[in-house]
Amino acid sequence: MAVKIITISRQFGSGGRTTGKQLAKDLGFDYYDREIIDRVAGETGFSKEYVAANSEYAPGKSIFSYSFEAAGTPGIMNGMTTTDYLYSIQRKKILEIANSGKNSIIVGRCADYILREFDDVLNVFIYADLEFRKNRVVATYGESNTKPEKRVIDKDKKRAANYKHYTDREWGMPNNYDICLNSGYLGIDKCVEIIKEIALNR
Amino acid sequence: MAVKIITISRQFGSGGRTTGKQLAKDLGFDYYDREIIDRVAGETGFSKEYVAANSEYAPGKSIFSYSFEAAGTPGIMNGMTTTDYLYSIQRKKILEIANSGKNSIIVGRCADYILREFDDVLNVFIYADLEFRKNRVVATYGESNTKPEKRVIDKDKKRAANYKHYTDREWGMPNNYDICLNSGYLGIDKCVEIIKEIALNR
Repeated sequence: MAVKIITISRQFGSGGRTTGKQLAKDLGFDYYDREIIDRVAGETGFSKEYVAANSEYAPGKSIFSYSFEAAGTPGIMNGMTTTDYLYSIQRKKILEIANSGKNSIIVGRCADYILREFDDVLNVFIYADLEFRKNRVVATYGESNTKPEKRVIDKDKKRAANYKHYTDREWGMPNNYDICLNSGYLGIDKCVEIIKEIALNR
Repeated sequence: MAVKIITISRQFGSGGRTTGKQLAKDLGFDYYDREIIDRVAGETGFSKEYVAANSEYAPGKSIFSYSFEAAGTPGIMNGMTTTDYLYSIQRKKILEIANSGKNSIIVGRCADYILREFDDVLNVFIYADLEFRKNRVVATYGESNTKPEKRVIDKDKKRAANYKHYTDREWGMPNNYDICLNSGYLGIDKCVEIIKEIALNR
């Protein structure tokens, strides 16, 4: 059974996106990350910025603001909270990609869970120690007023909360994935090599 | 930096031990699993059976019996509970193996944590879905009066509790390891191949 879809879940700053982009190039696969945001924005009419801020980090907002949205009108779309609505469209887009029959790499967005019934998917988790990720976040995204450690930890907490909310699974637990690679130990090139070898010889 | 020690942590029934044995054979590394039990038994005077039952599953006993041991005399050795004493000897044996300079594979026993200051260690976690492990436990260890699912889940719970007790880390969380491999998805031969390739080319 050839691998047609590779999903990449990743700790913030681990180089998961870089791994995915390199894999797409090497394997000739389509690459989806922010591209999904564009499609969701196109379908919903929300700005790309709004989708980016809310599509992967939904329940990361305070429980209060979330409840307020559910109770009030501004956050309600088609009888759902905005965040649930965005998730539903995002889920539809990911299923469309998988059903298109085109070989693809999808980064983040609960794709491992959404595509759990598909046989030809390889689910990967990329992670690294805090030191590696702190340095990489500053090198990749630049300095900010928030300390790198806090940026890394906060973002992962939001991803974990979002994943838990929509999948009822624990984000980053090995059993959700087929392989988990420590990019800090292995290096990003080695991660790409290992995943590629599995995808090509499955 | 060549890899001199490979630690293998494993979910029960995932084939972690088989992976370790095959790796030892292919790489010409020494192999330690029950061999550590023999050494601990030799040093402490406890039977191998007693060491096997208590060395990796210490706090898996009820908290009541554990407290009772700490308060009474039968469980006290050198001012420690028997389980803490066994852990301390086991830890010493693992450090002796690492300091011997001989290339080795060590299965279980918190070796990843005990050797965390060593540079030339590759820490691996082997896991698989429940169905794969249930079938493998019955095929490897035979039927028992306890349902395979319960055998697998209980053993992992005990390993997790033991690991937490002695390391204050969560057993099976990717960040404790350099690579985590799903043997149910990849197959044991592929796990061996991936680890071997990393160890030989580091």
